[in-house]
Amino acid sequence: MHAPLDGIVVIDLTHVLAGPYASTQLADFGATVIKVERPGSGDDTRAFPPFKDGESAYFAALNHGKKSIALDLKSQADRAVFERLLGQADVILENFRPGAMEGLGYGWAELSARFPSLIYGAVSGFGHTGPEAGKPAYDMVVQARGGVMSITGEEGGSPVRVGASIGDIVAGMYLVQGVLAALLARDRTGKGAKVDISMLDAQIVIQEHAIAITTATGKPPGPTGARHPTITPFSTYRASDGFFVIAAGNDAIFARLCAALGQPELAADPRFATNADRCENVHLLKRLIEMVTLTLPRSHWIETLEAHGVPTGRVQNMAEALADPQVLARNMVLPVSAPEGRPTFVAAGNPVKMTGIAEPSARKPSPSLDGDRDAILRWLSEREFRAPDAR
Amino acid sequence: MHAPLDGIVVIDLTHVLAGPYASTQLADFGATVIKVERPGSGDDTRAFPPFKDGESAYFAALNHGKKSIALDLKSQADRAVFERLLGQADVILENFRPGAMEGLGYGWAELSARFPSLIYGAVSGFGHTGPEAGKPAYDMVVQARGGVMSITGEEGGSPVRVGASIGDIVAGMYLVQGVLAALLARDRTGKGAKVDISMLDAQIVIQEHAIAITTATGKPPGPTGARHPTITPFSTYRASDGFFVIAAGNDAIFARLCAALGQPELAADPRFATNADRCENVHLLKRLIEMVTLTLPRSHWIETLEAHGVPTGRVQNMAEALADPQVLARNMVLPVSAPEGRPTFVAAGNPVKMTGIAEPSARKPSPSLDGDRDAILRWLSEREFRAPDAR
Repeated sequence: MHAPLDGIVVIDLTHVLAGPYASTQLADFGATVIKVERPGSGDDTRAFPPFKDGESAYFAALNHGKKSIALDLKSQADRAVFERLLGQADVILENFRPGAMEGLGYGWAELSARFPSLIYGAVSGFGHTGPEAGKPAYDMVVQARGGVMSITGEEGGSPVRVGASIGDIVAGMYLVQGVLAALLARDRTGKGAKVDISMLDAQIVIQEHAIAITTATGKPPGPTGARHPTITPFSTYRASDGFFVIAAGNDAIFARLCAALGQPELAADPRFATNADRCENVHLLKRLIEMVTLTLPRSHWIETLEAHGVPTGRVQNMAEALADPQVLARNMVLPVSAPEGRPTFVAAGNPVKMTGIAEPSARKPSPSLDGDRDAILRWLSEREFRAPDAR
Repeated sequence: MHAPLDGIVVIDLTHVLAGPYASTQLADFGATVIKVERPGSGDDTRAFPPFKDGESAYFAALNHGKKSIALDLKSQADRAVFERLLGQADVILENFRPGAMEGLGYGWAELSARFPSLIYGAVSGFGHTGPEAGKPAYDMVVQARGGVMSITGEEGGSPVRVGASIGDIVAGMYLVQGVLAALLARDRTGKGAKVDISMLDAQIVIQEHAIAITTATGKPPGPTGARHPTITPFSTYRASDGFFVIAAGNDAIFARLCAALGQPELAADPRFATNADRCENVHLLKRLIEMVTLTLPRSHWIETLEAHGVPTGRVQNMAEALADPQVLARNMVLPVSAPEGRPTFVAAGNPVKMTGIAEPSARKPSPSLDGDRDAILRWLSEREFRAPDAR
């Protein structure tokens, strides 16, 4: 059984989140990922809290299974090693500020001339084109500019950040898509390609609903708290011990919900006859539902609603989510295995379950800074000896 | 110039959001996407508001450039057409409840036996394995169970839904990754693969920060409103005409921020000396900053902060985001071109900018239900005539 990217070599100059999130997925698909880090301190996230015995849990969760070599791309000796690596690589990834690679002499024009089959994947705040191409950006800046904060938060309240770093993460996912598509194209043409992902672009494309509403009605939507903007009841509700979700997408489910709550008269109430009526009286209906649900724990309500065929689920904190039986059954919570003497961390599993990809019982360790230098140099010499002019 | 998926045929049984979001991206990579819809009503989203002249803007934004044929997979005549389509297909996508395809006689076991090179991509609420494999789920249910709602919202407040439907969308993106990886594997082995994506799994993997904090400290994080949980000042702030973001990631940027605000004494204040000090006094610092920023509009502050090298940006509503010059320069807002007499909609552009993929000035129209039946049947006959036993 071969993994889809068996034999593919990725030279990974990326740091912090968007890029490393992408190269982790390429490693999950079977690629060899060689992380090229700044000598001395390496990837910034090596210094990100929380720590366990001096090592960053954040770095470990994002860099398991990669190899590390420290190279100063301004030193001649290290540039020679870097260029030998490129000679054996299928993909290079970077998330520097646009123009930085050109400044080092490694822009796409130079690289594609010397390494015509190399795929160059870049992710940056605003992309490599447009009036703001050169600017840096953080996750929160693109969440703000892309619109998602304007539709997230309490109804009538202030904009709120999405708790997960989707500004970085969605962009990293599009980088993976672009690299995979470029590898497919190379299978047919033999030629590499440049992939240019903008974090801001990626925030726009995930707004399908808000774009449709804004452009069809002329009115941009605002935040609606925990409820769905156009379906009722479809929100969080309080039980005696916490929040849970009720997702009643149509009249039939609403009738079953009313039965499950022991309130069949609600289904007959003209104020709640249609979804439009329920949306108009959304706050009243919420209070009527919570007068019932607040009396008992959410385990009771979830069991009862599921028995009545009403979509529901607990609002879980991260500790609960990581202990969720379905999540565990899908192998989505894995220890990061540790060589002798190093702390053990936890990382998410591979969300792409597919034929040809084994499901491991643990993640490989994350690399120590420059920890694979000797092995990488030996591997380089062997590859060059076996195929002196294969590329 | 060939697009990466030129010549690839996708038979798309998916409906609503997660699946159609995925097949749109495959179409952007050059694939031919044939949407197989239920006769009579088709994809549920054809009936989703908002409408323009009776057509759904939501459907149009997610289904541009696809072809449609209506088939009843329980009728013998239509099953024969469907199986002829599969004979010419590279990929089949579905987002039914797990078990539904088996019920139709089109489970992975049957399909891979008859069409060994076919790639089968499925996305569902909880995946095809585990104790809850058969259950339906909505975006909000997996946002709730996966933990993102527990870290989104006002500090100390109730959990809030992420305004964009990331429960569906992130899962759809992993489906694209899996299909592309399977196509790469097929280039080497000739064999198809099954890809099984769970919306809940996909919510877990985007929580890299919350997982690291929860597992390293034992304490799951809660919501922090618009601010970053561990960096200060890194949040939204009020100007006289709306919100904007200040992202001061280190001491040097904080000093420049104080200068830009005309408050150099803040940088010298021992209560704000280090990031740890600033986090401890985060609410005081916010008020001190807003006492200044509230006096002038955000255009002033963004210009001033950028001149001082402080990362910043407006919190934009969707109308502002869609008019953002950088977004427009990246071709991320496109009209959906309309055949004679049909309304014109707007859709997002392709976020994967790469060599080999042209940037169109408009999106192709979305299909009318069963609107491509004759053309699809003609195309089938031609393919079968030219290559009677190619598969």
